Amino acid sequence: MEVRIPKRTLAEGLSILERIIPNRSSNPILTYLPLELNQQGLILRGTNGEVDIEVQLPAEIQGVGEVLVPAQTFAQIVRSAPGELIELIFGERLELHSGAFNTQLATTSPEGYPKLNFDRPDAEKIPASGLAQAITRVRYAASTEEYRAIFRGVQLEFSATGLRSVASDGFRLARYDLPLSLSSKKLVIPARSADEVVRVFKDASGEVALSVNEGTLTLVGDAVKMSVKLMEGEFPDYARVIPQSFVLEATLPAEALRESLKRVAVLSDRNNHRVNLLFNGHKLDIDAEGDYGRGREELTVESNGETQLMVAYNAQYLIEALTPIEGMIRIRLSGPTSPSTVQSVDDPGYLAVVVPLRV
Amino acid sequence: MEVRIPKRTLAEGLSILERIIPNRSSNPILTYLPLELNQQGLILRGTNGEVDIEVQLPAEIQGVGEVLVPAQTFAQIVRSAPGELIELIFGERLELHSGAFNTQLATTSPEGYPKLNFDRPDAEKIPASGLAQAITRVRYAASTEEYRAIFRGVQLEFSATGLRSVASDGFRLARYDLPLSLSSKKLVIPARSADEVVRVFKDASGEVALSVNEGTLTLVGDAVKMSVKLMEGEFPDYARVIPQSFVLEATLPAEALRESLKRVAVLSDRNNHRVNLLFNGHKLDIDAEGDYGRGREELTVESNGETQLMVAYNAQYLIEALTPIEGMIRIRLSGPTSPSTVQSVDDPGYLAVVVPLRV
Repeated sequence: MEVRIPKRTLAEGLSILERIIPNRSSNPILTYLPLELNQQGLILRGTNGEVDIEVQLPAEIQGVGEVLVPAQTFAQIVRSAPGELIELIFGERLELHSGAFNTQLATTSPEGYPKLNFDRPDAEKIPASGLAQAITRVRYAASTEEYRAIFRGVQLEFSATGLRSVASDGFRLARYDLPLSLSSKKLVIPARSADEVVRVFKDASGEVALSVNEGTLTLVGDAVKMSVKLMEGEFPDYARVIPQSFVLEATLPAEALRESLKRVAVLSDRNNHRVNLLFNGHKLDIDAEGDYGRGREELTVESNGETQLMVAYNAQYLIEALTPIEGMIRIRLSGPTSPSTVQSVDDPGYLAVVVPLRV
Repeated sequence: MEVRIPKRTLAEGLSILERIIPNRSSNPILTYLPLELNQQGLILRGTNGEVDIEVQLPAEIQGVGEVLVPAQTFAQIVRSAPGELIELIFGERLELHSGAFNTQLATTSPEGYPKLNFDRPDAEKIPASGLAQAITRVRYAASTEEYRAIFRGVQLEFSATGLRSVASDGFRLARYDLPLSLSSKKLVIPARSADEVVRVFKDASGEVALSVNEGTLTLVGDAVKMSVKLMEGEFPDYARVIPQSFVLEATLPAEALRESLKRVAVLSDRNNHRVNLLFNGHKLDIDAEGDYGRGREELTVESNGETQLMVAYNAQYLIEALTPIEGMIRIRLSGPTSPSTVQSVDDPGYLAVVVPLRV
């Protein structure tokens, strides 16, 4: 059993797995990396108990078989290998040759390693980059609190009109719509696992096949298969917190607002990060005051509706709501203490809801 | 009292001070930044109790005076200021204007801030970059142990033949010679303070004036003044650990040896990082063995002396001894268990001593 593979191909494959394979585990076999040779090439696998990943790498193969090697050590060796090509010879020890460098690495029998299963007959395909984008746009709004655990996930809603992603922590909400035609299902991915889905698929071209079975989402891309344990339950009805009527609407560049909020927020109260936004015709005055003094900046906006309105936000929440937006934003106020919406003028799929601070 | 100053100038000045001004302190006034206007321009100061720094910035000044502002908040505001120019108006509050952004920052009276004194009549000048280089080349060898506290410093020896810097942790030693003509003195700078000296002077052009007084080293450069509390005592006689006669001398590229050691060391014993070097004519075999297996690589060397010699090192120590060297290195062995020296072929000022591991 032998394989010859470009160092770069193998290193890229390992980089996909490295973050999920634990360095330490109460089940030490999970710190090992299964290396399998079969007709498809060299197969690498890993799991952290929540997310399973399998990577298939094209390689020059002789024979079939499988060994386990210590994952961290193997990855370090591959990264530091001096040659452009790496040759692996499977045996009681795994021999690795690259340039003038030779290693014999201790191996362990693949028995006892959990069976990872990625085969799903009922899969439906969506663009890999679109899936990653839908998660990325809303991820920031997910909760980090133990309280109401379901909000520690990102909800994905598949329907005949598309994929909708939603995240919320009860104080703000982010929603993203990707137009597609899909069969209906609703699921919640733990936010950390959602980060892994993004990391694996964000730069992938082509499509990813999705299927749900026994509380697990399976994603199959061109070279990577992934399965993710889902959270139980679903979000409470969030649609009712999205305001439908507004008293003021303003349009301005996202970058200018974001930078101004960051500057002014330096002076804000350390506890609630309060910034006051005074909409006044075509002017928007942003100010904050805390223990260290006061900051103030004036921006120009296009506005419709009430001529003057003061509203206060947690600056961090408003800044994060702007993060996914390039170009112009539209902010709509339903009143000084009722929820506001933030949207991208150029990307109608994105909507954020931010609740003002009480005066 | 007013000052107009380019944002970039002020931000660069603050970056010199920011690392030493504490974010929290049992003496809270040290978390403040003294801002002084005088005929020289805008003066910034800071101290962490071990290192005092004063930075003088060219600026357009009206009036003279001094205020204290919260250092961290002021630095954040300056960095995020939207304009290229910053205007400061001194008063009960410090007004900062930049573009459309305005701040009023709480100030504190400069009374109670420790007096920092940098004036020394007996100063002697040396090139700023040379001083930084002499410290940088040996810094890695300083100890981090409580035991033999003097080794937690970098010793600087000034004499008629030059500046010699030395660091050691008792197991290895690094020494660097910079040819200059100086009056004799010997002092030990705590390694962390030495890092600050390097940070401040490494990119400085021109000379720095040095003087020692009451256990303090004062360094005065073009725009920055610095004073550093010295350690008491000096290194024990280290010259006796530097071997004078050798049984084998080998020359090879530093980069190749460093990279090979890093690769092979991945497999080394986790406790002592042992790598074996077998010098054999024009071949150098490097190998290591640990719990996870064995690594081996062969390099080509130019060698004189014994035709075959095996010596074992802590890989980390040998790699660190190579760090300051570009181009070719010369390694000289005095025997399998007695100290070896590592030198740069191109930079005769550098010498490292590494003690082999016992067989």
